[in-house]
Amino acid sequence: MVPKIELPKGFKASGINSGVRRYRPDFGLILSDMPCAAAGTFTRNSLKAAPVLYCAERLPASDIRAIVVNSGQANAATGLEGIEDNAKLVARTAETLGVTADQVLVASTGVIGVRLPLDILLPALVPAVRGFGDSINNFGLAIMTTDLVPKVITREVKLSGGTVRLSGAAKGSGMIHPNMGTMLGFVLTDLKTDAAWLDRATKSIVDETFNMISVDGETSTNDSVLVLANGASNVAATSEADRAAFHDALRDVMRDLAMAIARDGEGASKLITVNVKGGPTIELAREAARLITTSPLIKSAVHGEDPNWGRILARLGQAGVPTEAFAKLRVQLQSTVVFDEGKPQKFDRAAAREQLHDENVLIAVDLRSGPFEATAWGCDLTKRYVEINTEYS
Amino acid sequence: MVPKIELPKGFKASGINSGVRRYRPDFGLILSDMPCAAAGTFTRNSLKAAPVLYCAERLPASDIRAIVVNSGQANAATGLEGIEDNAKLVARTAETLGVTADQVLVASTGVIGVRLPLDILLPALVPAVRGFGDSINNFGLAIMTTDLVPKVITREVKLSGGTVRLSGAAKGSGMIHPNMGTMLGFVLTDLKTDAAWLDRATKSIVDETFNMISVDGETSTNDSVLVLANGASNVAATSEADRAAFHDALRDVMRDLAMAIARDGEGASKLITVNVKGGPTIELAREAARLITTSPLIKSAVHGEDPNWGRILARLGQAGVPTEAFAKLRVQLQSTVVFDEGKPQKFDRAAAREQLHDENVLIAVDLRSGPFEATAWGCDLTKRYVEINTEYS
Repeated sequence: MVPKIELPKGFKASGINSGVRRYRPDFGLILSDMPCAAAGTFTRNSLKAAPVLYCAERLPASDIRAIVVNSGQANAATGLEGIEDNAKLVARTAETLGVTADQVLVASTGVIGVRLPLDILLPALVPAVRGFGDSINNFGLAIMTTDLVPKVITREVKLSGGTVRLSGAAKGSGMIHPNMGTMLGFVLTDLKTDAAWLDRATKSIVDETFNMISVDGETSTNDSVLVLANGASNVAATSEADRAAFHDALRDVMRDLAMAIARDGEGASKLITVNVKGGPTIELAREAARLITTSPLIKSAVHGEDPNWGRILARLGQAGVPTEAFAKLRVQLQSTVVFDEGKPQKFDRAAAREQLHDENVLIAVDLRSGPFEATAWGCDLTKRYVEINTEYS
Repeated sequence: MVPKIELPKGFKASGINSGVRRYRPDFGLILSDMPCAAAGTFTRNSLKAAPVLYCAERLPASDIRAIVVNSGQANAATGLEGIEDNAKLVARTAETLGVTADQVLVASTGVIGVRLPLDILLPALVPAVRGFGDSINNFGLAIMTTDLVPKVITREVKLSGGTVRLSGAAKGSGMIHPNMGTMLGFVLTDLKTDAAWLDRATKSIVDETFNMISVDGETSTNDSVLVLANGASNVAATSEADRAAFHDALRDVMRDLAMAIARDGEGASKLITVNVKGGPTIELAREAARLITTSPLIKSAVHGEDPNWGRILARLGQAGVPTEAFAKLRVQLQSTVVFDEGKPQKFDRAAAREQLHDENVLIAVDLRSGPFEATAWGCDLTKRYVEINTEYS
């Protein structure tokens, strides 16, 4: 049972079944009582879905009131018609909520190349408004596609002027149904802030959270993270300390949502956390951490609870770790040091296997080549992943 | 039964069991009666095995006489000791064959981080010489690690001055045993040529053959392709037409070996050929073709014989295909056009599935954005891949 996750002040949310899916919620709506500072980050895939093109053009902005989300059709590779469909959904949402069209953001997830079923979605707006409540739970259910568990979270942070709340929801990149799969993240807060600051904070935090997870190395046409701050708490982060505290809270929310996505990857049985420190640049630390999380060989070895450090070294080399670093770097699996100072370490193989039996696996690398550190999250590769994505065999 | 693959004139080869493996050949030796023009290409992984560092420094060269190969230990991540071990193997090989040390090339494949068992390998040199014959078959067997089938090929090409032969052997990047896995390719020819020309031809051909295959997107510490031309035919490619004819033959040999590696990928049941034409640059055509062959979602869909074109579009976007290309590009699965001019095409899904039942699957993309074309080869993703790499589950 997922506990009730309260929204920040001034937000309402709902998630209902529009009829696209048989019975599960598939249509989500968020409304703020007042205009929000809003920021977003989007997929780098050059095939961007219509809602992504729309939101990326609107953001950052200072007057956002609502977000509408449908799950079932991605509205990607749908051409001009897709852009028109997106505009119609925006217009009717604005009309229903009594806001203007440019105050509405959209996210879609589902099958690529299929148009939005507007005949089903537009009539669902009135019931969605009727479903408005003070928690994000139903919205979190409505954005799921093949996720096994909903991903919702809330957190309060005390600033000098008072307490602000952040509540978030996300869906993962599982792809059970053909063409399905998108990462969506939403964070709402009642902090009083401006769009420019929120935009900078969002982009920087997404780089170290949502952009550091991988289920299978595939980027989607629809990946989006949207952050709305409506100021309803009347608390602003005026001091440097307040801004740092809020930044930390926002990062914690995004990191927890990102980790929940990795843990719920298709067929996954283990969450893999890869920490790379001692990097000569932040880019290399990130690339090394990410390449380890996307390695099918390492993912398979973790699934088999096999302390296979050779595959990790080879992947570090693929990431472009400087040759001289291999004479000094350290690799640790859980608490077992398996390679150090350029040499394989003697370790108790049975004990190392036993440690890998945990559903949380840590791969820690110290490159000893600089001050930069990065963490990435992924999951193990299982036969279930292949089953899920084979459709039938 | 693999037919006998004859060597070009002036070459001898053998493959014997040194004792590293229980009974299979694991130690290969090639000797040319006369000095060879020699070229090589090597892994871009920054963790390069000792034999790779050694050969890369030697090549191109005009006086190579021999190649020695061991399978079982990769001699990677073995530090200075690994470099010394490699030098000892080279020295003893040269001594045994009556050539100088700098006339000997080496390739190793096997476990990362384990030193060469010189106490086993050095005594195997005399039996290896005793095993010399006029075919490449035993050598092809000796370089196998987890390959299911040996990969050997020969071809003759008629030039104006007479006929020359090319014979090749390769091993694939299957990784059944922990840390195993390397792609090795060897081509021997009796063409009379110089090292500089051979080097240019080799590098350019490897880029469109061995560098265009993928089993799982992992690059090894030991990947090497070595080409030796000993001139024993006394036929040189003097005219432009001769050079083109030989270049084509060398490309055919390398392509066939590369395709054999992809087809024999771990757990694979299908060879996937991806052709991308109409690219604005050769780099983008290659990147798009390769990203399709490395996509776990597409590989799973092919395994499931599922005509899932949405995943292909998303992967093209990940490769950075220009946004405007999506309004005109065409995607074809076997002979079925599934997407064209920016629109999903109506097709008989059952018939498309039936076509995908073949063990050779073609994915053809026309980006309609330029003159560049590339082909990549891969294999489907099966539960067997996960089983193999999980060691146990």
